[in-house]
Amino acid sequence: MSSDRPKLEFWYEFASTYSYLSVMRIETLAAKAGVAVAWKPFLLGPIFHAQGWDTSPFNLYPAKGKHMVRDIERIAGDRGLRFALPAKFPQNSLTAARLAIVGTDEDWVAPFTRAVYLAQFADGADISNRGVLEALLAGLGLDPAPTLARIEQADIKDRLKRQTGEAQARGIFGAPSFLVGDELFWGDDRLEQAVAWAKQG
Amino acid sequence: MSSDRPKLEFWYEFASTYSYLSVMRIETLAAKAGVAVAWKPFLLGPIFHAQGWDTSPFNLYPAKGKHMVRDIERIAGDRGLRFALPAKFPQNSLTAARLAIVGTDEDWVAPFTRAVYLAQFADGADISNRGVLEALLAGLGLDPAPTLARIEQADIKDRLKRQTGEAQARGIFGAPSFLVGDELFWGDDRLEQAVAWAKQG
Repeated sequence: MSSDRPKLEFWYEFASTYSYLSVMRIETLAAKAGVAVAWKPFLLGPIFHAQGWDTSPFNLYPAKGKHMVRDIERIAGDRGLRFALPAKFPQNSLTAARLAIVGTDEDWVAPFTRAVYLAQFADGADISNRGVLEALLAGLGLDPAPTLARIEQADIKDRLKRQTGEAQARGIFGAPSFLVGDELFWGDDRLEQAVAWAKQG
Repeated sequence: MSSDRPKLEFWYEFASTYSYLSVMRIETLAAKAGVAVAWKPFLLGPIFHAQGWDTSPFNLYPAKGKHMVRDIERIAGDRGLRFALPAKFPQNSLTAARLAIVGTDEDWVAPFTRAVYLAQFADGADISNRGVLEALLAGLGLDPAPTLARIEQADIKDRLKRQTGEAQARGIFGAPSFLVGDELFWGDDRLEQAVAWAKQG
């Protein structure tokens, strides 16, 4: 990726169902448009908590949750993706998000992120489970033990906290979200528009 | 409209900004696909109230509200529509919704609905104002006084109440919503998909 390509920031939360839809297609869409993607994992929990929610709005508002599942089933079906809501929803995404911060430094954030979403939303795995994450890391040719040790260090924990704070400060209230400079786009439905916006500069 | 065309139910709330986007294009999209539209005005207020909200989520969650305005500005711009949030939001839509029930019986619900949304979201008018609604009715060649008298009758008031109850019972939690049988689609982003679903039967 050359640094002079226009840039799209992709803000996602590992427990977010609609983020799965974008995770699986953002790289090809952006590549076709000549746009570079900056992967920005963050945590929605603190942002939801700040607006008085203690869980996903899809749990708080059951009609909305029921529609979300059916909506993603229809879209995933059209795109040839498997989708099923895991037994526990939303999952605790803290460990996966910290690993993704390491992946950002070591340039494996994109394949790692796709692997985590597929495990969770296609195969029903529990992504808060250390063994699940170890297997995903190993599957990517990485050494799980030192990678999992790395996320216990304060700098990684702090960076995820700061990234979550930055999301909130820049107006992000849900996931997936896309930023081109200060221009905010929310939802997988806006991915094409966000890519086009980045391209046009 | 022949009765053997596939049918799409269009559920909308007059104060809803995203409903504006669908109101202005649903008839042409459906006509091209050979699909008949059943216009179903209802009130979101009681549905929001039942889930603990006393106003629009766009007011309750300011970051979401800020994004909504910008999002609709971008989409309306692409579609050649004017859009500005009226000074008071959300507006009281009760009178407009009752008039639309009368319009359903007398076959002017579609042009009336478009006129109300344009007045509100293109021209900033207050659609709870009786004078505004009188002018819109007159502009459609209708006689405002008897039409406004009609909505004071109990059967019209009851039908709007029942229609709102039906929306809630059938899983509707926001607007615009589209129903093809029991298949629910939420949001202007799903209009094409809902029309295609109706067409395929």
